[in-house]
Amino acid sequence: MSEITSASAYASQLGLSARAAAELLPAINGARKNAWLERVAELLVERTADLESANEQDLAAAVEAGLSSAMIDRLRLTADRIRALADAVRQIIALPDPVGELVSGGSRPNGLQVSRVRVPLGVVFFIYESRPNVTIDAAALCIKSGNAVILRGGREALHSNLALGSILRDALRHEGLPEHAVQLVESTDRALVGEFLARGDLIDVTIPRGGKSLIERVCREATMPVIRHFDGICHVYIDESADVQMATDIVVNSKCQRPGVCNAAETLLIHRRALERVWPSVAGELSTRGVELRCCADSLPFASGAISASEEDYRTEHLALILNVKVVESLQDAIAHIRTFGSAHTDAIVTESVAAAGQFETLVDSSAVVVNASTRFNDGGELGLGAEIGISTDRFHARGPCGLQELTTYKYLIRGTGQTRG
Amino acid sequence: MSEITSASAYASQLGLSARAAAELLPAINGARKNAWLERVAELLVERTADLESANEQDLAAAVEAGLSSAMIDRLRLTADRIRALADAVRQIIALPDPVGELVSGGSRPNGLQVSRVRVPLGVVFFIYESRPNVTIDAAALCIKSGNAVILRGGREALHSNLALGSILRDALRHEGLPEHAVQLVESTDRALVGEFLARGDLIDVTIPRGGKSLIERVCREATMPVIRHFDGICHVYIDESADVQMATDIVVNSKCQRPGVCNAAETLLIHRRALERVWPSVAGELSTRGVELRCCADSLPFASGAISASEEDYRTEHLALILNVKVVESLQDAIAHIRTFGSAHTDAIVTESVAAAGQFETLVDSSAVVVNASTRFNDGGELGLGAEIGISTDRFHARGPCGLQELTTYKYLIRGTGQTRG
Repeated sequence: MSEITSASAYASQLGLSARAAAELLPAINGARKNAWLERVAELLVERTADLESANEQDLAAAVEAGLSSAMIDRLRLTADRIRALADAVRQIIALPDPVGELVSGGSRPNGLQVSRVRVPLGVVFFIYESRPNVTIDAAALCIKSGNAVILRGGREALHSNLALGSILRDALRHEGLPEHAVQLVESTDRALVGEFLARGDLIDVTIPRGGKSLIERVCREATMPVIRHFDGICHVYIDESADVQMATDIVVNSKCQRPGVCNAAETLLIHRRALERVWPSVAGELSTRGVELRCCADSLPFASGAISASEEDYRTEHLALILNVKVVESLQDAIAHIRTFGSAHTDAIVTESVAAAGQFETLVDSSAVVVNASTRFNDGGELGLGAEIGISTDRFHARGPCGLQELTTYKYLIRGTGQTRG
Repeated sequence: MSEITSASAYASQLGLSARAAAELLPAINGARKNAWLERVAELLVERTADLESANEQDLAAAVEAGLSSAMIDRLRLTADRIRALADAVRQIIALPDPVGELVSGGSRPNGLQVSRVRVPLGVVFFIYESRPNVTIDAAALCIKSGNAVILRGGREALHSNLALGSILRDALRHEGLPEHAVQLVESTDRALVGEFLARGDLIDVTIPRGGKSLIERVCREATMPVIRHFDGICHVYIDESADVQMATDIVVNSKCQRPGVCNAAETLLIHRRALERVWPSVAGELSTRGVELRCCADSLPFASGAISASEEDYRTEHLALILNVKVVESLQDAIAHIRTFGSAHTDAIVTESVAAAGQFETLVDSSAVVVNASTRFNDGGELGLGAEIGISTDRFHARGPCGLQELTTYKYLIRGTGQTRG
């Protein structure tokens, strides 16, 4: 009982502090928010050794716990990755301040001046797993967009996140920004998450980023809107007319460049008439990279060491060097497969045919539809959003990578000279 | 048990039919959607007598059930209102088709062409109460924005809605559009609503519009995103510098022009230094209109027939000719009252001071902040959206009146020439 009370009191305390910070943040101008970002970038590089040693504790625990190599890769903070993180923060500095941006405006026939201006969402509760760099990306995006954020990382990354949290807080103090604009939940007790999800009065939006069971739980319990980030079951479809080298490069990059992330490809679809011409080259290159191929009966004979795919494989986000392969009879078959088995995240076509590219773009309704490029480009940084707090798989107003704009809402300003409604 | 099964089967049947229609709608061009709207407008006028007689049945039942006069007013369909409804449909014809609209676009340093284009949300489940004209507005907006819609109106309006539903369906058939693009739930069994809310696999968004208990229930049970439409506890604040005539006109219009709707004013705040100069005129005009005034101790003596306001009054959406009145010491006090007692829906200031107007606009964070005009203008039609399916009181991506744009999402199109990620 006293534990429940204290969990509830802890959630209230963080929520109230966040709300107080959120009332101050909209009035803080872009220059001051950018000074904070610059300070964060500096501290990241200055404290590389501290971060690496905190991260070592998490990695050691992860190895002991027998986490998969993909999970351990996601967890790792190297000096290179820390530098990249500081660079990512500086890219956010370069982006325009979304707060106060005029979304639309004009005058009505009765003389009313109507405009919509961007305002922050308010207080964001962000729940995520594993990758500690997400801590920095999320805080940077939230503060730049005028939101207070409560960060709840995974237990696997707790030491890394505490070290990163100190940097964020020290930078807030250094720049005179509200100290509680960024708060880290210092316990990874799962019941505590429920206390936050119950506080729709204090938290404006929850963004869960992690496994399906986490997101399902959040959707069930949340009393505020949720930006959902479900599976990435992403496809590359090699069309009849595909160029062999381009197809090979795109499939290899989509699968292998970082297999543990949501926009990596899980399934390759090949037009039957491209099978003999394209598949041996693609299969050979994938085998060289150590990719386990799970093939349909028609693609199996061409790939040495491949095994048979089950229907379940086509519904699975492997997050590892495993690729499902299936031969389809037509572009329409490929689209039907994507609709049935995909998660509407990222789907690519490799084709030389403008008609096929157009049909694929029209009929595939995923958050990103890619023609002749890697699925890995469905990413806030790569699409020019600076960074992302997640990729929304909801068919809702924020879809795909969520960056600064997706962390704002708007209000209408209606300016009159005494107008009344007739 | 068999009832449960049949409720669940009914929800599945409507959901699957809607989904099938939703797959066809994005490919239907704007001209065909507009032809459907024109046909709906024509049928509304042609069938005025039928509609009035169906509506009479609902009105008779409402009188018998002892519904409030505000509720009965909301329910009533007159020939004038039907003509206005047809006009509103024709206004939607004049709006640009949102589907396929380019939201943003450009090229990335690596040569990728990135664009975002609007696509429909998919299948909308719309739950609403009382006003039958909402049936037409909602269907018109959903179809124009390429969505299939399942309409679940209130039991009070069932006969009216069935007559309107026939018009919508006959027009779909007449124009060769998917017949199940608009479906009316023909039972007002409340348990049935739960069956629809469980079908996040078939329905993309639920929009509840009605009382607080309805919306709370929907938020609790929905397995898909929800656009929430909570109370409109709207304020008019008469600033120290307000013009007497303008203040009187705006308060009277905000309260009386249609008291049963969400953007009607519920509370009047008056700066103490405007009390003697402005309040007698405002109070006199309100009394003439039959408005019951519930006053604080300071405003009470100036208004004949007024009664004392309770704290609960300030938290109540009366939806009737009742107005709470409170004297405040300053603009800051007014803003603090609005933050504490308001619902962040629509709040207005009457002032001659540019500084006061600016502060009010910055510090009041409601879906619409109004300067020197009636609160009644926070309405999709009045703001140029054509019409609205609801007013979102969420601090989320769609806020305030939701029209065509708010019924769409977008997808990213990424066009390359073989790019891979390094």
